[in-house]
Amino acid sequence: VFARGGAAEQVNDRAWLQAMLDVEAALARARALDGRIPEADAATIAAACQAERFDIAALGAQGMSTGNPVLAMVKALRATLPERVADHVHRGATSQDILDTAAMLVAKRALEPIAADASGAAKACAQLAERHRETPMLGRTLLQQALPVTFGLKAAGWLAGIESARSDLLATAERALAVQLGGAVGTAAAFGDDGVSLVAGLAHELDLAEPALPWHAERGRVAGIASALSLLAGALAKPARDVTLLAQGEVGEVRERPVDGGGGSSTMPHKRNPVAAVAVLACAGRAPGLAATLHAAMVQEHERAAGAWQSEWETLSDLLRVVGSAAAGAREMLERLEVDGERMRSNLRAAGDLVMAESVVRALAGQLGWWPAQELVRAAACRAATAGGTLREALLQTPEVRAVLAGPELDAALEPECYLGAARAFVDRALACYRPAGSWSERTQ
Amino acid sequence: VFARGGAAEQVNDRAWLQAMLDVEAALARARALDGRIPEADAATIAAACQAERFDIAALGAQGMSTGNPVLAMVKALRATLPERVADHVHRGATSQDILDTAAMLVAKRALEPIAADASGAAKACAQLAERHRETPMLGRTLLQQALPVTFGLKAAGWLAGIESARSDLLATAERALAVQLGGAVGTAAAFGDDGVSLVAGLAHELDLAEPALPWHAERGRVAGIASALSLLAGALAKPARDVTLLAQGEVGEVRERPVDGGGGSSTMPHKRNPVAAVAVLACAGRAPGLAATLHAAMVQEHERAAGAWQSEWETLSDLLRVVGSAAAGAREMLERLEVDGERMRSNLRAAGDLVMAESVVRALAGQLGWWPAQELVRAAACRAATAGGTLREALLQTPEVRAVLAGPELDAALEPECYLGAARAFVDRALACYRPAGSWSERTQ
Amino acid sequence: VFARGGAAEQVNDRAWLQAMLDVEAALARARALDGRIPEADAATIAAACQAERFDIAALGAQGMSTGNPVLAMVKALRATLPERVADHVHRGATSQDILDTAAMLVAKRALEPIAADASGAAKACAQLAERHRETPMLGRTLLQQALPVTFGLKAAGWLAGIESARSDLLATAERALAVQLGGAVGTAAAFGDDGVSLVAGLAHELDLAEPALPWHAERGRVAGIASALSLLAGALAKPARDVTLLAQGEVGEVRERPVDGGGGSSTMPHKRNPVAAVAVLACAGRAPGLAATLHAAMVQEHERAAGAWQSEWETLSDLLRVVGSAAAGAREMLERLEVDGERMRSNLRAAGDLVMAESVVRALAGQLGWWPAQELVRAAACRAATAGGTLREALLQTPEVRAVLAGPELDAALEPECYLGAARAFVDRALACYRPAGSWSERTQ
Amino acid sequence: VFARGGAAEQVNDRAWLQAMLDVEAALARARALDGRIPEADAATIAAACQAERFDIAALGAQGMSTGNPVLAMVKALRATLPERVADHVHRGATSQDILDTAAMLVAKRALEPIAADASGAAKACAQLAERHRETPMLGRTLLQQALPVTFGLKAAGWLAGIESARSDLLATAERALAVQLGGAVGTAAAFGDDGVSLVAGLAHELDLAEPALPWHAERGRVAGIASALSLLAGALAKPARDVTLLAQGEVGEVRERPVDGGGGSSTMPHKRNPVAAVAVLACAGRAPGLAATLHAAMVQEHERAAGAWQSEWETLSDLLRVVGSAAAGAREMLERLEVDGERMRSNLRAAGDLVMAESVVRALAGQLGWWPAQELVRAAACRAATAGGTLREALLQTPEVRAVLAGPELDAALEPECYLGAARAFVDRALACYRPAGSWSERTQ
Repeated sequence: VFARGGAAEQVNDRAWLQAMLDVEAALARARALDGRIPEADAATIAAACQAERFDIAALGAQGMSTGNPVLAMVKALRATLPERVADHVHRGATSQDILDTAAMLVAKRALEPIAADASGAAKACAQLAERHRETPMLGRTLLQQALPVTFGLKAAGWLAGIESARSDLLATAERALAVQLGGAVGTAAAFGDDGVSLVAGLAHELDLAEPALPWHAERGRVAGIASALSLLAGALAKPARDVTLLAQGEVGEVRERPVDGGGGSSTMPHKRNPVAAVAVLACAGRAPGLAATLHAAMVQEHERAAGAWQSEWETLSDLLRVVGSAAAGAREMLERLEVDGERMRSNLRAAGDLVMAESVVRALAGQLGWWPAQELVRAAACRAATAGGTLREALLQTPEVRAVLAGPELDAALEPECYLGAARAFVDRALACYRPAGSWSERTQ
Repeated sequence: VFARGGAAEQVNDRAWLQAMLDVEAALARARALDGRIPEADAATIAAACQAERFDIAALGAQGMSTGNPVLAMVKALRATLPERVADHVHRGATSQDILDTAAMLVAKRALEPIAADASGAAKACAQLAERHRETPMLGRTLLQQALPVTFGLKAAGWLAGIESARSDLLATAERALAVQLGGAVGTAAAFGDDGVSLVAGLAHELDLAEPALPWHAERGRVAGIASALSLLAGALAKPARDVTLLAQGEVGEVRERPVDGGGGSSTMPHKRNPVAAVAVLACAGRAPGLAATLHAAMVQEHERAAGAWQSEWETLSDLLRVVGSAAAGAREMLERLEVDGERMRSNLRAAGDLVMAESVVRALAGQLGWWPAQELVRAAACRAATAGGTLREALLQTPEVRAVLAGPELDAALEPECYLGAARAFVDRALACYRPAGSWSERTQ
Repeated sequence: VFARGGAAEQVNDRAWLQAMLDVEAALARARALDGRIPEADAATIAAACQAERFDIAALGAQGMSTGNPVLAMVKALRATLPERVADHVHRGATSQDILDTAAMLVAKRALEPIAADASGAAKACAQLAERHRETPMLGRTLLQQALPVTFGLKAAGWLAGIESARSDLLATAERALAVQLGGAVGTAAAFGDDGVSLVAGLAHELDLAEPALPWHAERGRVAGIASALSLLAGALAKPARDVTLLAQGEVGEVRERPVDGGGGSSTMPHKRNPVAAVAVLACAGRAPGLAATLHAAMVQEHERAAGAWQSEWETLSDLLRVVGSAAAGAREMLERLEVDGERMRSNLRAAGDLVMAESVVRALAGQLGWWPAQELVRAAACRAATAGGTLREALLQTPEVRAVLAGPELDAALEPECYLGAARAFVDRALACYRPAGSWSERTQ
Repeated sequence: VFARGGAAEQVNDRAWLQAMLDVEAALARARALDGRIPEADAATIAAACQAERFDIAALGAQGMSTGNPVLAMVKALRATLPERVADHVHRGATSQDILDTAAMLVAKRALEPIAADASGAAKACAQLAERHRETPMLGRTLLQQALPVTFGLKAAGWLAGIESARSDLLATAERALAVQLGGAVGTAAAFGDDGVSLVAGLAHELDLAEPALPWHAERGRVAGIASALSLLAGALAKPARDVTLLAQGEVGEVRERPVDGGGGSSTMPHKRNPVAAVAVLACAGRAPGLAATLHAAMVQEHERAAGAWQSEWETLSDLLRVVGSAAAGAREMLERLEVDGERMRSNLRAAGDLVMAESVVRALAGQLGWWPAQELVRAAACRAATAGGTLREALLQTPEVRAVLAGPELDAALEPECYLGAARAFVDRALACYRPAGSWSERTQ
């Protein structure tokens, strides 16, 4: 459930170790840029920085007594190098420099498949919105049948939510994903006069942002990424919730096209379970709690926190993983969504004409006033509901209505497909936001 | 604790009622802009839309049976108007249009004092950073004495965190605070052909953003504001946590200048409690849970949710209020912060020379190599710690050290104020971000 | 939405003030019990401890500078008393003693209507379970039509959940609601030799538990109450979620009987909104975040926390209020639930015989083996689903099936009401837990 | 950080798989108990149910398309058995029966090391409380020096919190850890008449509770365990927070005795980091968010939820793991805690006599009245604080004080060790709760 998409493998132990090694390698290269160590030495270090060469479990176990695995990793890395070269490793850095920068790399790498899957989901929504711009269906409020909408409008709403969250996530990442390099207490004193230039060099090497100052204990970057991920999860869960509801047997308006005979049940072979939608909801359900943990962890003491910092590592990994899985699941769900326009129309008809009451109010309002018309229609609707007849019959028995609306006008007012208001315009506006002039072709390829 | 600053009075029942009335008034004016109703009628409606004229408690009680207070308010508003004018009121809108747009107004109004207090807090940090650019103090990691920093660097970190969160909050508000106008199911059908233009008109009247389409069930706007507020709370709580720690009797490096004899205790007259810092921490402690509730509420059904939407109202109010209180408290704390530079220096001296070990490593590394130097210094430090002597003495008993560092060189390496690395540069960079060229004077007025 | 039931008025500012005054009064009486002050003085103090006599807003404002309102209240209380009597007030206590004990009183008083409403909701579930012990309906899993259940079984599940949460809440309250009396740092030193006996006396006066030692900074009591409240909210939300789903137009199996024409909509007069269910879901949605805040607040420093303690007050009030509102809403929903057994049966028929596949597997398994039978039935079900026919037809075309099951036996296997397994037994077991022998009559009165 | 103690290996993929296999084995044995299948077949099945024989990764991958791994596991298990025996496997059960019961087994097995470590932590607290019953130290409120307490009282508070949470957790587990067996929709229909007896048989085989009815969609059991775990985390984090504060260089009253040279720092060899305390705080920081996720997941649809159920699996595992790690870390921290009673005394002396103000108030109150005495002492304290002298001097300059208290009496009132109130009594009460008569010896072995 929690391992769909590409994010999971970017946040596992191996990925973290590789990211930490990448930081050590980049630090060596940055020092070579400054001319402080020979380029060849930096290259030797970089070549040694491959996760496969290390015993992940052993490093984790050794890390327990010092509180994090960096020291053990540095020791193991140095052991693989000639003594002279080994002396450059990690020099002047602190464990938090490595872990924080590695966390940013891990996040950056995990965000790639997440953003790609969110884009795929958005594109699928755009296609649904366009294809079903004219497909009428029941709108439902408080889970009650309400007034007609189009499926295109519903999909356009999904699109707007996902696109907004996706672009916010990328913008947040652009700002927030920065290197950390401040040494033991954030002064970078162990680098002598090189501190500021090494921060820039490390950022250059790793293609991360360069912060104005170390952020050892200022954790808005981590919490900001967490928020943006949780918002994306929420935006993806909205269509998943709708799909599970629309796929109910009694509604039957959409269903997921199964992957390889998926969606079945050990005990109920007839079922077509919305497997991807369920996975999205399961993953999205975890995001707010994980994000809240990272927000609460912003209250950090002095130059390195006693607990709050350490609580970030797994939480961030989990959040990237579950949101990645939600994005992959949503894409799968939306790309494979079978929409039954006929069933939408027939459900709309089956709902009866009571759902058109507002339309009649509107038709009457010009001559009777809005609120008097509403009162008349409400009364007719109640009579119809009580007597079991249609709203049309009840209205035709109302003299004030008959005086204003002739039969054909009333029929027009009771026609769902004539009461869709700005639905098409809203769809077009949402699509226009999604594909600014000139960008459409590339997006739809 | 939770009612400092101006936000509290922008989120109480009266403020919500006024915001709902403002939406009704603006809707009437927007219809007048379109020429659909006479301007004079719109003006009459607007004049009647004053919260003082309504019985808030009664509207709340009546709202219980319909699920929200809008219908009752509309009825009461119409009752105060001539029948012809009353007929324009709320026409075509749905309760959610009014409540959602009112929520955006409430948020906008509450954000003003919040942003102002956050600005005040940031400015106070900038002044502290500048004033204490050269004030050395102990850096502390995992609540242990570590290496020297400056108080200016600490304050610059606070500044960076608060400014980043403040500007993100304003940018989020700019994007997210939009009108809602979609009628019963988001098609705006009851407005006939006017739906799209009324959305624009309403946005113009209320100075809120115009959405591409209604967002009845796409709640990224609300959840996005919530995230940004929670991030600000976290950024404000960081200095509050530091202040409570630095104000400990055994540390004594800062204290809050009391307001009117505040900070006392019924049973302990000698205490100088960090009252504002405590209030910030108390308020900030509530933010992640409230934001998580709003994130979880993004999973909304169809065209209007059954529960998740309704859970937003109070939660958003509470979040605005507690973050507002945190911002006001942080400003108060920072503007009234008494910094004892002498005590900082004396604590730094009192920590002994063991905290300077890394500096000695650095001094030795050029000739001995970093890691061998570290090993030597570590051994000396252990001897010093065991024997109760100074690191200096232990180092002078180490032949390898004596061979490299003469007494005066060792003394220089043991001098805290000579081992501040890039602290000043980092402070300057943080201040340069805060006050771009030309903007400083206005900020400091 | 958040103010149904009686809890709201037990947690407002007035209720807190009265609770604080009650603690001061009880402390005076407890000292009179010990003979330390005249009984008449205690009575004079108790008589003055009436919230109506104080200016709540002013006390709140004065409390801002000291961090809590107790000192201001004590000053105001003393001012109303003769000097000699006034000298006994609050003597030796600390603000936290008063606030913590008041919080326990507030919780105790709010729990009464909460427990009563939860009992009412449970009783309504029990009646539904009993009445509909034999009412078949579709079971639904992953929101897909599955196999037959009874509505009685569903209601019995609701009952079990609510009863378990309700009894856990009462048991937790019994243990957790204790007086706090420890003076400034928990030694009760200002009471001289009377500390221990005063704790007992205060507990006796207020009918709260007597703790083994002060719990100034050990907050399991508060967090435990919070958990139990949140669990009750979840248990109440489960039936509310089911009611909103069963009340969908396309399902139509239950609906709320409206209160005074409630449940309507300004724009959709035909709707019968499940107003109470929505309120329950809205309130329950807030509980986990509030409880998490109180759990996070358990990490308190030394003898009184700087922030975490203060974050409890409003959070606990909000939690009591929203869970109280959820309990009242659930009771209202369940007591007024209209169950349409005919619709349940017709929906079950309309689902077709594919939902009976497992029953046929079972009928075949004796002779064919379970898994071979499942394979046969699955294949038939797929053919039926593809061809649009019934499972019965597809099975009759399967020679292996015909060889084992004659037509009437097959028909019996396809009869939903014959495949209800232990549904009745489970209902009876749930009811037996709910009403132990002899207690039924009093519960159903 | 998150893998201390024995819980981690009880919640990993292998442990889950074994638990699922254990449920299948137990189900076969329960059917043999009923005489429905031969005992030998049940034994053959049980013998095959060993996790080592299965490819965990493959089962996980296959589970993606059906939403959970049970079907794939059952297929793999059947493939290892003779066809006749294989036919008994999983017969009549549904995936949720296996997963829910396995979750309970996983929780039960993880709770063993968690409870053992919590017991160890409690025992260490009890020993500290007893040993330091007479060790005076500064009490601190709002992180300010307040009045004297004893370290024994502090440790007794830790003890009370941990013991209460531990016993609640065990009591909750006793009630909540139950088998699940209801088949596809909770009627157990596929078991024919055996449903009820199989529930009992399965409970007997697995030593789990027997529920009155299936709890497929009634999740109070899972959420209840979650709450109890989170409460334990909070109770463990309280002493961890205190230890980090007491271990500050400026305070120096406790420190962790390092394990194998742990607690060091790559850059600061002099540091003695409170590694275990930090780990406890990091782990405990995750618990409230995870528990909130499980509480929010209680709102489950119909007979099986679409998302909420599936969100439980990893969340519960994570929660068991982080609380297990917190318990192991707390035990380690408390068992290895070095308490510096001399430093506690010297810090108390160094705080000066202002902290004894309340004691003087008490000494004066008999003759002057409490509040007038407080006013006098407060004024003296202010003079002393301003002039930099002692409270004693300022009091001796106050005629009203001199009139009441002679020098030796004043000195007695200013003596911290004479103003410990009921501290010893409270310690004794806490210890008496912890070790009821007769049980002490076994606990201390």
